[in-house]
Amino acid sequence: MNIEKMIEIGLLFEQYKELLTDKQREIVSLYYEEDYSLGEISENLSVSRQGVYDTLKRSEKILRDYEDKLKLVSKLQEQEEFVKLVENKIVDIKQDLLQNRDCANLIPKLENIEDICREMLK
Amino acid sequence: MNIEKMIEIGLLFEQYKELLTDKQREIVSLYYEEDYSLGEISENLSVSRQGVYDTLKRSEKILRDYEDKLKLVSKLQEQEEFVKLVENKIVDIKQDLLQNRDCANLIPKLENIEDICREMLK
Repeated sequence: MNIEKMIEIGLLFEQYKELLTDKQREIVSLYYEEDYSLGEISENLSVSRQGVYDTLKRSEKILRDYEDKLKLVSKLQEQEEFVKLVENKIVDIKQDLLQNRDCANLIPKLENIEDICREMLK
Repeated sequence: MNIEKMIEIGLLFEQYKELLTDKQREIVSLYYEEDYSLGEISENLSVSRQGVYDTLKRSEKILRDYEDKLKLVSKLQEQEEFVKLVENKIVDIKQDLLQNRDCANLIPKLENIEDICREMLK
């Protein structure tokens, strides 16, 4: 399986799986999370291979359509970037403190972290 | 209109409006955001009052069902609490800096802010 697609569907599934039917959710999970083949899923669920394939295709489309509308995966990735930014700025402030630089200069840096956190809510 | 319901539907609508049909979205917006009455919506859209009422009820149910499954409003409120917490902690650190307290004690406080930001991603 194409690794990029596995990651893509994995991320979409994490956000939107509750919006699939039980059957769709089970088949996507077995294929993308447990790495079952179409044949193995077909056998386990007593569904034809074609049926498994069709359900996978339909579920992938459903997940992508939800992402087009709600953009939850994209927003989560943005938030993760913000958190890394905050962590870098805190490391920077800690270094200033350890090197005993003038502490008053840290106030704008702290306010910058506040601004980043507020951006995370947008 | 009940103010609590207006707030509740307003928050749900903000998160999930893209998942409604154009007609549902328009009617919910006119009623909850623009404060139109059922009669005014009926007249404006050439739909019966009963039709407007039924669409509102169905849309409210759809929005609540999405919240049951995705919990986006609830997660957003949690994040807003985290941001307030970070802001309070930054105010606290700034006060320490202005009062020239021993700056090395600020390091655990900064690490606490890092932890809070990471919690926001869960």
